[in-house]
Amino acid sequence: MKLLLLNPNITEAVTATMAAEARRSASPGTEIIAVTARFGVQYVENRIEAAIASHAVVEALVDNANGMDAAIIAAFGDPGLWAGKELMSVPVIGISEAAFLTAYTLGKRYSVVCLTERLRTWYIESAHEHGLAGRLASVRACDAAPSDITQAKDEMHERLLTQCLAAVEHDGAEVLIVGGGPIAGLARELADRVPVPIIDGVSCAVRMAEALVGLAPRKAIRGSLARPGAKHSRGLAAGLARWVGAGRE
Amino acid sequence: MKLLLLNPNITEAVTATMAAEARRSASPGTEIIAVTARFGVQYVENRIEAAIASHAVVEALVDNANGMDAAIIAAFGDPGLWAGKELMSVPVIGISEAAFLTAYTLGKRYSVVCLTERLRTWYIESAHEHGLAGRLASVRACDAAPSDITQAKDEMHERLLTQCLAAVEHDGAEVLIVGGGPIAGLARELADRVPVPIIDGVSCAVRMAEALVGLAPRKAIRGSLARPGAKHSRGLAAGLARWVGAGRE
Amino acid sequence: MKLLLLNPNITEAVTATMAAEARRSASPGTEIIAVTARFGVQYVENRIEAAIASHAVVEALVDNANGMDAAIIAAFGDPGLWAGKELMSVPVIGISEAAFLTAYTLGKRYSVVCLTERLRTWYIESAHEHGLAGRLASVRACDAAPSDITQAKDEMHERLLTQCLAAVEHDGAEVLIVGGGPIAGLARELADRVPVPIIDGVSCAVRMAEALVGLAPRKAIRGSLARPGAKHSRGLAAGLARWVGAGRE
Amino acid sequence: MKLLLLNPNITEAVTATMAAEARRSASPGTEIIAVTARFGVQYVENRIEAAIASHAVVEALVDNANGMDAAIIAAFGDPGLWAGKELMSVPVIGISEAAFLTAYTLGKRYSVVCLTERLRTWYIESAHEHGLAGRLASVRACDAAPSDITQAKDEMHERLLTQCLAAVEHDGAEVLIVGGGPIAGLARELADRVPVPIIDGVSCAVRMAEALVGLAPRKAIRGSLARPGAKHSRGLAAGLARWVGAGRE
Amino acid sequence: MKLLLLNPNITEAVTATMAAEARRSASPGTEIIAVTARFGVQYVENRIEAAIASHAVVEALVDNANGMDAAIIAAFGDPGLWAGKELMSVPVIGISEAAFLTAYTLGKRYSVVCLTERLRTWYIESAHEHGLAGRLASVRACDAAPSDITQAKDEMHERLLTQCLAAVEHDGAEVLIVGGGPIAGLARELADRVPVPIIDGVSCAVRMAEALVGLAPRKAIRGSLARPGAKHSRGLAAGLARWVGAGRE
Amino acid sequence: MKLLLLNPNITEAVTATMAAEARRSASPGTEIIAVTARFGVQYVENRIEAAIASHAVVEALVDNANGMDAAIIAAFGDPGLWAGKELMSVPVIGISEAAFLTAYTLGKRYSVVCLTERLRTWYIESAHEHGLAGRLASVRACDAAPSDITQAKDEMHERLLTQCLAAVEHDGAEVLIVGGGPIAGLARELADRVPVPIIDGVSCAVRMAEALVGLAPRKAIRGSLARPGAKHSRGLAAGLARWVGAGRE
Repeated sequence: MKLLLLNPNITEAVTATMAAEARRSASPGTEIIAVTARFGVQYVENRIEAAIASHAVVEALVDNANGMDAAIIAAFGDPGLWAGKELMSVPVIGISEAAFLTAYTLGKRYSVVCLTERLRTWYIESAHEHGLAGRLASVRACDAAPSDITQAKDEMHERLLTQCLAAVEHDGAEVLIVGGGPIAGLARELADRVPVPIIDGVSCAVRMAEALVGLAPRKAIRGSLARPGAKHSRGLAAGLARWVGAGRE
Repeated sequence: MKLLLLNPNITEAVTATMAAEARRSASPGTEIIAVTARFGVQYVENRIEAAIASHAVVEALVDNANGMDAAIIAAFGDPGLWAGKELMSVPVIGISEAAFLTAYTLGKRYSVVCLTERLRTWYIESAHEHGLAGRLASVRACDAAPSDITQAKDEMHERLLTQCLAAVEHDGAEVLIVGGGPIAGLARELADRVPVPIIDGVSCAVRMAEALVGLAPRKAIRGSLARPGAKHSRGLAAGLARWVGAGRE
Repeated sequence: MKLLLLNPNITEAVTATMAAEARRSASPGTEIIAVTARFGVQYVENRIEAAIASHAVVEALVDNANGMDAAIIAAFGDPGLWAGKELMSVPVIGISEAAFLTAYTLGKRYSVVCLTERLRTWYIESAHEHGLAGRLASVRACDAAPSDITQAKDEMHERLLTQCLAAVEHDGAEVLIVGGGPIAGLARELADRVPVPIIDGVSCAVRMAEALVGLAPRKAIRGSLARPGAKHSRGLAAGLARWVGAGRE
Repeated sequence: MKLLLLNPNITEAVTATMAAEARRSASPGTEIIAVTARFGVQYVENRIEAAIASHAVVEALVDNANGMDAAIIAAFGDPGLWAGKELMSVPVIGISEAAFLTAYTLGKRYSVVCLTERLRTWYIESAHEHGLAGRLASVRACDAAPSDITQAKDEMHERLLTQCLAAVEHDGAEVLIVGGGPIAGLARELADRVPVPIIDGVSCAVRMAEALVGLAPRKAIRGSLARPGAKHSRGLAAGLARWVGAGRE
Repeated sequence: MKLLLLNPNITEAVTATMAAEARRSASPGTEIIAVTARFGVQYVENRIEAAIASHAVVEALVDNANGMDAAIIAAFGDPGLWAGKELMSVPVIGISEAAFLTAYTLGKRYSVVCLTERLRTWYIESAHEHGLAGRLASVRACDAAPSDITQAKDEMHERLLTQCLAAVEHDGAEVLIVGGGPIAGLARELADRVPVPIIDGVSCAVRMAEALVGLAPRKAIRGSLARPGAKHSRGLAAGLARWVGAGRE
Repeated sequence: MKLLLLNPNITEAVTATMAAEARRSASPGTEIIAVTARFGVQYVENRIEAAIASHAVVEALVDNANGMDAAIIAAFGDPGLWAGKELMSVPVIGISEAAFLTAYTLGKRYSVVCLTERLRTWYIESAHEHGLAGRLASVRACDAAPSDITQAKDEMHERLLTQCLAAVEHDGAEVLIVGGGPIAGLARELADRVPVPIIDGVSCAVRMAEALVGLAPRKAIRGSLARPGAKHSRGLAAGLARWVGAGRE
């Protein structure tokens, strides 16, 4: 099985961190094809950057879909996710979506811990957009931002743990989610130090993508997930322009 | 990997139907151990029967947990599911929970089709109890009940298809769920005749259980999913009495 | 008027405490018939115990319904309540339901105070299940559990008062509910020491049951509260098996 | 026990109809003191009329509170109800509030049937204002208005029954409420012709007021239901001016 | 353009404060006609006073509507607002409604700061009544009430600033609303001392009223905002009695 | 006052239609500067196209912000709106946001009528994203799509009117919104043929933008609307890259 792991930001080191965690999490026989957005920003943290990333996501999906069994949008907050689901004929899953859904099976209320206050706001909005905020206990950010996003996992380790424990103690979290692509894999390291299940978007997305591939759902030909009709375009990358211009068969 | 498939009603033929679909759906290397409730009713359709079944579920989980990697509560409506999650140290998943969560990844709004009006009410309540009713488009029941629940799959095939098509046409369903253990596997047969993804609780639960086993979440030792303390009991089956009397270590 | 007061746990001393409060609260001419569950646990605190108690409730209702004008399910959290409403042809009311509804008439926002953290989670869920959490200000648990549940009322008196005052001061509670069968009657003792109305599930349920008997609503013959059709069963108590096997006339 | 039954509109014939139903519904020993608003309109149907009626309600409560054990605001839609609760030191209950709360005990979803389309909108808003719309199935109005509001009960009998049956059949109502003071008592007449419980605001309010008097809740001295502080006023009726000017002791 | 600025309380000094802010906020060519309620209380703070004020509002609108292009109900909490919308054929806007809607354009979450705890409860309910509480972060009251409501703006200046800063810091407010007619204009003075937009009900209402006049929406002749039919009345002011008795043409 | 009217799609004829309506709606002294997206599709109808348009919006805002007093994002559904608010230091308003907020002042429930089924789904989601779906009665699409989007206004005139009338009759709409940039101005033409207020996104946005400019809110320097910090980027247009790289001062 081939899973496309698409990093919506432009930082290759983050792609590598996420790909490594994806491979650690995957079943035997699952191949991870990691791709970085052609354009965009260092890491995605706010609505401006998410707007840019959403476009990058649809462009990259068109360019890399060939032969894939499913795709993972690998930025917590899921920029461009539902555009991707509309676009692709195989399953597409986001890392926050996957983590939220997994959390729903493991406890009644979940919390997300993340790196910065600005991400915190975004992740709350992401839970609401998915219709999965009803069981969200809290989103907690570290009290200081990382100096280097590619080193965040090591640098912020203890600060994130502090927030995890506070979420259990004060917010009633029964499941913890470590939110953010650059800290993929951290959940695994903290598991023995927190009293409830702790999960990570990338590993949840890999396992859930495998599950969806196994179920082999058909592509919708009705409703908002069906392939759209053809439209004229201007200024788009060649592949995306062709795709938009072709429309449904 | 060993998955316990627990039928909360007492009808062996329904257990067999669900086990067959579970085996069709499972990954290579996954073993399905199917168990039928020791006490209860023919099939579970209302709150009285669900109350009985919930007790049967906790009794059966205690008696059959040994060596299992995860358990599936295999009655749509998920009687005793959260009691089971509280009880077990491995993942426990319900077939309606699994179907609802899968639906969340495949479209914006989902509908459930089911056999009887009384089930319809229950399934709506089940979606609300899971906090997953926000994207529920409708639950639709057939306009006549099956004469024999063990033959429902064949007997109700066309009536269920009619409701599936109506859910897409009139309710805006973007994903369809065939709800009910006795009709497990029907989704597979209808897939080519409906214009959106159609899924089934048993197959979703099998694949999602595999995913959860792969993620290996720790058992909570805090919050409402932690193992409860010891309590005196009276009139319970031996295994359950022992378990209730032992409490957390 | 005869009111069945059904204790879903097996502790006779708790039955006695609740019956005493019920008799203090009842109108002249109301007779309280107190019954303890045939099987179950010491007191009901979590989903496993509630699953068992729900079964015990339906069994006990069938066995004790004869000649009753209404029934009260007397465990805060209301295990088996809606199964009971479905089963009985006279009104059935739960002690948390009765307290929540009464609170709706006395103030805009209410809080529940209870004995343990685990009960706290249950009572929040109970308010949500009744669709009555929209005006719930908080549920507060004592910071230590009682050493003996049958003595909780005396032992926890001051701790519960502390939580009552905190609910008013910090959570904006305009009505207080003392939650839990074993502490039935405590509200009466604390009334002069709190600045807002304080109520108790048992007394509310008695008065509300009397009101419902006075209104004499007909038993539904349509919808989810109608008596279900007949089903085969296995392993049930004789009375319940007969009832399940008989179905609607 | 003395219950004040306050009609917020100026039509004595409606007061008489409601008082008759209240007396039919009351327990032995309950005395109904019926009062009609000093100023206002023929019957209350919209926000303008409800604004006027709210003022009339607070004026009338001040003037008639003496010696009462509880008060009933007897216009469906409950104009001035929460102002009345804030004002009085004994329980105050509205006829729609009482009907909604009673409905919550008798079925999962309720519908209201009423005389006119304009009332329909108001009653929906009333359910929302009480935080009790979550289980509202529908509000249905007759397809023609009554020619004389004091004869509505006879004139509209069959039209209301039609809407009752439609609410059960099409909206899934498990409880029916006949909404509107002028048709008080109609529920009693229709009970045998509908397949689910059918209730009436006036009778529910009488029985619930009796229950509240029995519980003897203390008057709040904190929060929004406490008696307000003194304020200057201008142009108010003598009793109300005095009350507003006096403030809390 | 002529805007009626209607003060629902009886304090002329508050009318003057609000009129001054309204004139500072208005576009050139907008004339503010300020009117004080004929009857009522010193300032409106609770449900009793709001019930009286609602009546005063409809009376004053009938008496002063002539020649107006729009009307502003100038008490935060909007007593009688929707009655006024139903009554008038030109736009009517409330100062809390205007502030809430403006806040929706300027940030994701807003907080209101106000003078007293009792107002705090009312303003929360007002946001809910408008269906605009979904993005309400908090309502914060000063920890002491003003000694003289007509001097509140000067007296409470620093206390209100403290609450503004706390709302940003602790509640995540992205927009601040200074709530209350007597402190109209304060937002303007605090703007440089808070890190997010801060707005005021009166100025928002003036600008939004101008916008609505510019859009020239037609008066509804269907639905709950249409002019009601004629009704008999008793004890109303002459103008209002005439209006109620006339009904729609 | 200078208002930037930004068309997120690439069709100049649609820009012209919207600019004409904007100028008809504006106050004297308001200048409309109309701009068309540099890249994108013919018209925006689904999530893929909205993802592209969101990027185009932020690029165009950076390039055209200079000297503007406010900006209008002129595609119903508001692609990139909140990114734009985060980016700009002057007010930014979307045409669906403006229409929804205006509708909140004019009636209790509003409906949107639009051209296609796919737009219908988007507009419902847009109302939810704004937190303004609580008072949404329905979104109705024409039963056939326009053959040429630039002629939709004429071609679809009668079909849209049919849906408007149905929304009032069947869905209880008290305000109607004509949704979609290409049909800007249609509301004005239909006003006399519908029984409730009917509004248009472009005119509402122009008037509301003027109101916001008049209120002169400060730019947030805290929270999610503050200008973000600097980030590296790749592959962005020169202006946007400079803006992203500069960060807050």
